[in-house]
Amino acid sequence: MATLKDVARETGLTVTTVSRILNNRGYISEESRKKVHEAMKKLDYHPNEVARALSKRSSNIIGVIVPHINKPYFAEMISNLENEAKKKKYNIMLFNSKSDDDNELKYIDMCKSNRVAGVIMMSGSFQLDEFKDLNIPLITIERNLECGTASVECDNFHGGEIAARHLIECGATKLLHISGVSETEMPADERAAGFRKVCEETDTWHREIATTDKQYDSGEYHEFLTEVLTEYPDVDGVFASSDIIAAQVIQIANTMGRKIPDDLKIVGFDDTYIASLTCPTITSIKQPIKEMARTAISFLLDAAAGKVVPTRMILPVKLNERETCFKQVSES
Amino acid sequence: MATLKDVARETGLTVTTVSRILNNRGYISEESRKKVHEAMKKLDYHPNEVARALSKRSSNIIGVIVPHINKPYFAEMISNLENEAKKKKYNIMLFNSKSDDDNELKYIDMCKSNRVAGVIMMSGSFQLDEFKDLNIPLITIERNLECGTASVECDNFHGGEIAARHLIECGATKLLHISGVSETEMPADERAAGFRKVCEETDTWHREIATTDKQYDSGEYHEFLTEVLTEYPDVDGVFASSDIIAAQVIQIANTMGRKIPDDLKIVGFDDTYIASLTCPTITSIKQPIKEMARTAISFLLDAAAGKVVPTRMILPVKLNERETCFKQVSES
Repeated sequence: MATLKDVARETGLTVTTVSRILNNRGYISEESRKKVHEAMKKLDYHPNEVARALSKRSSNIIGVIVPHINKPYFAEMISNLENEAKKKKYNIMLFNSKSDDDNELKYIDMCKSNRVAGVIMMSGSFQLDEFKDLNIPLITIERNLECGTASVECDNFHGGEIAARHLIECGATKLLHISGVSETEMPADERAAGFRKVCEETDTWHREIATTDKQYDSGEYHEFLTEVLTEYPDVDGVFASSDIIAAQVIQIANTMGRKIPDDLKIVGFDDTYIASLTCPTITSIKQPIKEMARTAISFLLDAAAGKVVPTRMILPVKLNERETCFKQVSES
Repeated sequence: MATLKDVARETGLTVTTVSRILNNRGYISEESRKKVHEAMKKLDYHPNEVARALSKRSSNIIGVIVPHINKPYFAEMISNLENEAKKKKYNIMLFNSKSDDDNELKYIDMCKSNRVAGVIMMSGSFQLDEFKDLNIPLITIERNLECGTASVECDNFHGGEIAARHLIECGATKLLHISGVSETEMPADERAAGFRKVCEETDTWHREIATTDKQYDSGEYHEFLTEVLTEYPDVDGVFASSDIIAAQVIQIANTMGRKIPDDLKIVGFDDTYIASLTCPTITSIKQPIKEMARTAISFLLDAAAGKVVPTRMILPVKLNERETCFKQVSES
């Protein structure tokens, strides 16, 4: 494999000059720059990121740990993190924890062994002592981790408020919230609090039903939702804490012969592409996934550079109105 | 950060012995092994993968290049690749090409700079000279790349045959195939050939309509499908080349008042979780994603170790019968 020396020899420049060109340091003539790039191409030379990482004590890699790569919310977040990282010339190393605490610890270790610039954590359900002396930036997205460097969240509380208010404004009178998992404390729990506040203020009948870790990991809610909708036959508005749950509410309502949105109105959460692929399409609370990804990468790199970053950042959500719950346009 | 020397000092063992324990070489007493692991924990020592990569000239990283991380098929493949790589103690570095040839070239360069053990390519639409002298294993999944080390595919031809035969056996008489993109040659094109063969053998009316790169990248087919279903009002069976297309066929058929499966039967391809989340659920041809991922990782590591690997491996597909097209159980 060609080395820096080979490039220098080919161009007639010194190793120092070639190195300055590759690292964009100091004044360099356009002619020398062109010469070096031509030589790099001719010799198939690739700067050794591994050697660079060793001398810098940190690599151009950002570790990303998620519970389930293939779930639409995480897949969209990973895609956006990759995009934002590339803009800063960093690469993503991906870890799938399957919501397993042991995996999370093992993957943090692997990140350290690979000298990552920092870790972005979308998994993890408890306060780990192991995270205390990490010595690298740890940014969480939609997770509580007291020992992390910074936490990036969407405005879950306001999302719950918007969902309840929209269901009521569209005519629903008895509201059900299928909420996040009961075993794990998460920022998403605030969705229930926002929902509750609006229901209490407007004196609207409401119930909250928690889901389980097992359901979350499998993504399978059919049996559970059949029981819930059978137990509450009068409910005419459902706020589901994810689009995956909302899609399955549609399926169960269909088998029960309940018309959407006439008999039952539904608002989901996340606004992943699933919301656009169902019949009817799902009205959903949109998480600002792109902005959350950009913020997480920027906090991570700032923290790695020794800058002070906010410990918590909450980004705004908004309603994306589709067919499962929409306001009738009044004819004038 | 603690070093190998610190661990040796802490345990009273030599650096060589500690290194042998970390690399599992030669006979080592259980007592020494325990001592070393306790010292590693106490000192927060992490073996430096970066230094190891530099001395080995290749890292524990596998580069994975996909066109769209967030599409369900790729998200599920990435998740399975991560899982199989972890079993062999390798990590995944992820690249999103957005189907852009320049990105693909740039990402191959980044992979080389990071001294990856090899690259798995699920993107790429043309025969690149640049891939010829890559000097690292390049495994493609569901892509034609003549210069690659090995290609892993599902049995697309047979998938097309199964889909056509199932539509016909369920009573469809006029079949439409919404096929892959016309601009790019891909193994998935074989689906159309299998579909065509069965239609010709059974003397069944059939048409094939190709989609475009633009539609593929955006995942948006509504306008296109409305035109197609309006142009062919007699069609009573659709074989869609992905579940994303099949989900949108359901939506358009609904707005046209056509009942599924009575008026229109649909078979999708991939069998991603979208097939289970629509109403009705989608009958689909299942790609053996897990086995394809396992094969790709195993070929890559074998090739990296200098072993001979097959240049092409085709894995079997099967029908997953759901609600958009199913055989009536005859009452006796």
